[in-house]
Amino acid sequence: MSTTGFDYSKVFASNVPQPAARWTGFPRYNFVGGHNDPEAIPLDGLAKAAASALLREGKLLATYGLGQGALGYTGLREFIARKSSSHRGIEATPDDVLVTIGSMQGIDLVNRLLVEPGDTVIVESLSFHGALAKLRKIGATIIGAPLDEHGLRIDALETILRDLKGRGVRPKYIYTIPTIQNPTGSVLPLDRRHGLIALAREYGVPIFEDECYADLVWAGSAPPALYALDPAQVIHIGSFSKSLAPSLRLGFAIAPPDVLGRLVALRSDGPGALEQLVVAEYFTHHFDDHVQRLTIGLRAKLDTLVDALAREFGAAVEFNLPDGGIYLWVRLPEGVDVRRLIKPAAEAGVAFNPGPEWAVDPEAAASSLRLCFALPSHEAIREGIAAFARVSAEQTGIPARSANVAARTVAAQ
Amino acid sequence: MSTTGFDYSKVFASNVPQPAARWTGFPRYNFVGGHNDPEAIPLDGLAKAAASALLREGKLLATYGLGQGALGYTGLREFIARKSSSHRGIEATPDDVLVTIGSMQGIDLVNRLLVEPGDTVIVESLSFHGALAKLRKIGATIIGAPLDEHGLRIDALETILRDLKGRGVRPKYIYTIPTIQNPTGSVLPLDRRHGLIALAREYGVPIFEDECYADLVWAGSAPPALYALDPAQVIHIGSFSKSLAPSLRLGFAIAPPDVLGRLVALRSDGPGALEQLVVAEYFTHHFDDHVQRLTIGLRAKLDTLVDALAREFGAAVEFNLPDGGIYLWVRLPEGVDVRRLIKPAAEAGVAFNPGPEWAVDPEAAASSLRLCFALPSHEAIREGIAAFARVSAEQTGIPARSANVAARTVAAQ
Repeated sequence: MSTTGFDYSKVFASNVPQPAARWTGFPRYNFVGGHNDPEAIPLDGLAKAAASALLREGKLLATYGLGQGALGYTGLREFIARKSSSHRGIEATPDDVLVTIGSMQGIDLVNRLLVEPGDTVIVESLSFHGALAKLRKIGATIIGAPLDEHGLRIDALETILRDLKGRGVRPKYIYTIPTIQNPTGSVLPLDRRHGLIALAREYGVPIFEDECYADLVWAGSAPPALYALDPAQVIHIGSFSKSLAPSLRLGFAIAPPDVLGRLVALRSDGPGALEQLVVAEYFTHHFDDHVQRLTIGLRAKLDTLVDALAREFGAAVEFNLPDGGIYLWVRLPEGVDVRRLIKPAAEAGVAFNPGPEWAVDPEAAASSLRLCFALPSHEAIREGIAAFARVSAEQTGIPARSANVAARTVAAQ
Repeated sequence: MSTTGFDYSKVFASNVPQPAARWTGFPRYNFVGGHNDPEAIPLDGLAKAAASALLREGKLLATYGLGQGALGYTGLREFIARKSSSHRGIEATPDDVLVTIGSMQGIDLVNRLLVEPGDTVIVESLSFHGALAKLRKIGATIIGAPLDEHGLRIDALETILRDLKGRGVRPKYIYTIPTIQNPTGSVLPLDRRHGLIALAREYGVPIFEDECYADLVWAGSAPPALYALDPAQVIHIGSFSKSLAPSLRLGFAIAPPDVLGRLVALRSDGPGALEQLVVAEYFTHHFDDHVQRLTIGLRAKLDTLVDALAREFGAAVEFNLPDGGIYLWVRLPEGVDVRRLIKPAAEAGVAFNPGPEWAVDPEAAASSLRLCFALPSHEAIREGIAAFARVSAEQTGIPARSANVAARTVAAQ
């Protein structure tokens, strides 16, 4: 038999992507993505939870969906319902909860339920890269709704809705991250939440509320979820990626029965049962103390990041302190295009998320970047920001002085 | 604010499904689906594996993909590569392995890579319901390749390939379950494996090999996987659903780099990391003894099922004893349409998989049904088959006598 390779390109479907690049490891100073703090993973607690849950309910693993249907493990849905009530003001039963493969599956399913090519959606002008990428792939028309330091501007949203209505367009949803906005870190005040819901009702547009980060509020609590204020008008999603660990791939959706039952019908698979068992067991006993410990650690890392930026960049960077979460959204002076810094920064071991990827209008965020401070150690944060400042100074002349050393720009060398 | 509900139907995309039915629990005698034996779940072993893996590598959970890239947990890919070599003759490195969300994600991704509406695929005339359903949803033209008691008939396949070539059609793949065929339970002999590969090469058609059940061979070993015989021509998928537990949602794909890298690029999410850690840890130490214990138990349940069928149905049913796995494919006399038995059987607490759902030509399998014997206890198998025989006798007059009691058909009452 011949050992020559078969040419698969002869049978590829149209528009198949190029092969993914081979994995070459994380950069030394990794401010990218939504990773969490490795030191905050409760190793002992999870090991004990795994043992308890397995010995009590492990036989259920032999049946698809633990023999409990398509919504997910009952124990986890019970915890989600309880936590959503106590922490987010949401009145939901376990039957109103769908456990998803991260919150990303929730976004995928809601898009499949509501959004077709050419449909219009309203998204905060700065928003989650993954949500924007999915909508662009679908071919949706994305309208960016302006933000200020407290989140969505209700007056501006009203103008958008009125304008769309005047053109006969009903948007499929308003996608918002009201509680620790991604990337800006703001928490939408209660009066704006009421204003948002009133507008959504007036214009007959559902709200798609993404509360992935809502557990990580510095103040310990935030205004109630939008879903709590109007369950009929809101599809709510959340995640355990930020409150526990992103590699678990566990999220959830809470929605009216008419919606939830269709999200179930649309999906072909759910998350693994062992993770559901273990997370339910651990969080049923340790949610508040774990999240409190995690949040204290994250806030300390934010302090380190802010100090490092002040020391290295001085007045050359601007940011609003986030109300929680794992990101700092940083603006460099106008005229700097952070996309030009990606490669030289990578060569210096520094990775960051360029602002344009987090923006409905990429050019409007050309000078901004998102820094995730959860994964790197305090030392790596300090060293990484110093390295980034050197790269930035070389490439752009900004900062002009870094840690009291004047920049030598590439041009000046 | 009004509390009336929002009418989501105004914003639904076209062709959204009806809401999934609410879960009402398993039937009493459950011969449906691919569930496993609850008594064979290694509770202690998994609990210990969870503790070891978490304490050693749990911090990795803080990073997406355990900080190891998109293929999956390195430890699990190492185990899969080792096991595929020792048990299936496959020479693969961990970088040739993609860990998937069950084998179903493998099927989805391979379809997205290769199959578009109107494309032709060759599938064994009786095959996995899920694979058939996906292909029908895509709108592929499915050609059924005849089977006999040893699996795919190579002569018949050649006729199909020649005929298609004569019409200018190159099928996108030949989907086969060579080792414990689903639903028939056969193992394809080595000479047919070579014949299949020779045909695939001659006609330039990739083989899509599904080895979900290959770990559960009664004889302990089977001929090498097709992938082992010709890695360039075969895309290979497998699963931990049958060798361990279906609710884990862990499977894998092994494929040439050109294919594997594109499967990675096509998917938006992978399986949970905790399950990967735990299964790698457990199976690295206990694969052979676990699978041996599991298989012995399954074979005993098959014996109970075969005894019960003989007692209740006598000569009215036909089947070939499977070479392993969890299914028995049963033929009732021609003229019986098992679809008419679904409802009355359900009323008697008995659920089975109707043959037509496992067939490229549903009508040709109208008298067949698939019984999964892994989940029910020995007692439930006996009682369930007795209950099913009563239903069948009432509805069809077959069996005419059951456990020495003559049937009273519905018509005769």
